[in-house]
Amino acid sequence: MGEFGLIEQVTAGREQSPGTLLGPGDDAAVLRAPDGRVVATTDVLVEQVHFRLDWSTPHQVGRKAVAVNLSDIAAMGAVPTGVLVGLGCPPDLPSSVAEELVGGMWEEAQQVGIGVVGGDMVSASSLTISVTALGDLQGREPVTRSGARPGDVVAVAGRLGWSAAGLAVLGRGFRSPVAVVGAHRVPEPPYAAGPQAALAGATSMMDVSDGLLSDLGHIAAASEVAIDVRTEQVEVPQRLSEVASALGADARHWVLTGGEDQALVATFPADRELPEGWRAIGAVAEGSGVTVDGFTYEGPSGWEHWR
Amino acid sequence: MGEFGLIEQVTAGREQSPGTLLGPGDDAAVLRAPDGRVVATTDVLVEQVHFRLDWSTPHQVGRKAVAVNLSDIAAMGAVPTGVLVGLGCPPDLPSSVAEELVGGMWEEAQQVGIGVVGGDMVSASSLTISVTALGDLQGREPVTRSGARPGDVVAVAGRLGWSAAGLAVLGRGFRSPVAVVGAHRVPEPPYAAGPQAALAGATSMMDVSDGLLSDLGHIAAASEVAIDVRTEQVEVPQRLSEVASALGADARHWVLTGGEDQALVATFPADRELPEGWRAIGAVAEGSGVTVDGFTYEGPSGWEHWR
Repeated sequence: MGEFGLIEQVTAGREQSPGTLLGPGDDAAVLRAPDGRVVATTDVLVEQVHFRLDWSTPHQVGRKAVAVNLSDIAAMGAVPTGVLVGLGCPPDLPSSVAEELVGGMWEEAQQVGIGVVGGDMVSASSLTISVTALGDLQGREPVTRSGARPGDVVAVAGRLGWSAAGLAVLGRGFRSPVAVVGAHRVPEPPYAAGPQAALAGATSMMDVSDGLLSDLGHIAAASEVAIDVRTEQVEVPQRLSEVASALGADARHWVLTGGEDQALVATFPADRELPEGWRAIGAVAEGSGVTVDGFTYEGPSGWEHWR
Repeated sequence: MGEFGLIEQVTAGREQSPGTLLGPGDDAAVLRAPDGRVVATTDVLVEQVHFRLDWSTPHQVGRKAVAVNLSDIAAMGAVPTGVLVGLGCPPDLPSSVAEELVGGMWEEAQQVGIGVVGGDMVSASSLTISVTALGDLQGREPVTRSGARPGDVVAVAGRLGWSAAGLAVLGRGFRSPVAVVGAHRVPEPPYAAGPQAALAGATSMMDVSDGLLSDLGHIAAASEVAIDVRTEQVEVPQRLSEVASALGADARHWVLTGGEDQALVATFPADRELPEGWRAIGAVAEGSGVTVDGFTYEGPSGWEHWR
């Protein structure tokens, strides 16, 4: 299919964003970087490790591969400007599968008004997808993991536990309920909530890819603070409780430890009003580590333990 | 080893460039983009497809993976500002190998004064390296493949045929001469020649990764022109002639068709003086396709044919 061949082919006829000065087909792409700084992140997804083509369509995998990267851009308080794609494809992969993958990438990119601006496609023994997303800070300072201060409020935007519930359902051999299975296949990161949090004075932020408590551990470590999550503030959606009850699982555990929903978690000064879509779930204090209601989280008894 | 773990570890203690505002360890890196535009390119290298660890050390593979990307940045007339790395590693890969790889990436990046600013590391069935390089145009217009005009001079900077000679030597089971084997293991792209060509008014440019004639075919197609290479102008280094003679191969063929040296090839208006390091090798005319001394290149008789 040749270098760029398929990416160019899927890209032909699609409209690039006004910020894309040169798209696929040359030695490199050229994007506007109006802020004078560029935000850049890369994530790699491997078949059987990060996705299964018997659980997700190639289109869904393409969307997810782009979503996890765009979510990293949002978590810095930036807006995405373009994505580049590196595809390693087994020689026997039908070209329709690769086209669907890149089509899914395009669809997710277009959710935020950008496009696939370049890439490379090579032979590999298993399907490997690397996506690089670039973003613009629009004059704001990047929100890192290290700025949380004692007294700050911890807040979250987006869904928690839905992907974990979907994974549990798929792991038991079921394909429904569609609401949770779909959440596992394609996350719905709250892209706009990142820049909004930055504008509202967020002191630290990251996206929840490993799980709320685990990822809060990164903020606590980088910021040298303690974080306490208050379960009375953490909503457990009715839908997740129903699924958990059917599977004999614990919905709150999914919410506290499930990854891959690409929610955003941030800390805000206590005197600031949280922006729309953000909900408080805890507080920052002096110290270190992450607790739930003041205690180390041990997980539901008889169920999987966290850490 | 965890996300970022190894990349952070190898990066610790190394100095990032002044243009790197935020390096590895957060959701994304932040780089200066002083021009207000950013140049971006991705290449993927897979073990056994693009490199062999019995022919190259991990350090050499790391250097090459970064070099092929930096070369794409130079081919736009830009200067590199940072690289991001996506590593897919087999579970049994010794961590020392991964460290050496990333160390090699750092060494090549430092040749042009930049660093490894971020990345992701995951499990994969075979070693897969994706590198994304970013660059800055410093106020110049990007030099694409589509600007060559009839009457232009075709010129090249950097080495041609050396990597092909090295590959031929390795393929016959030899490890020397070191000059050509080393050229195959780690290319020496003429990074500075890209921005210099842009300043000198180059009308089109690309890096030679597939082979001179093949890559000139991309410029001819994108620019809708014909390109003729004049063998009297194409230097065949004495060293390559000696190696070819020992192997019963044709050194000129390596020069005309060998890839992976990451030379730069460009077109310049005939009235411009070529910048230092650039040498004329042919001319642009009305028409289409690439010829050698006016004829379709058929390769040396009894040897491999080019297309």
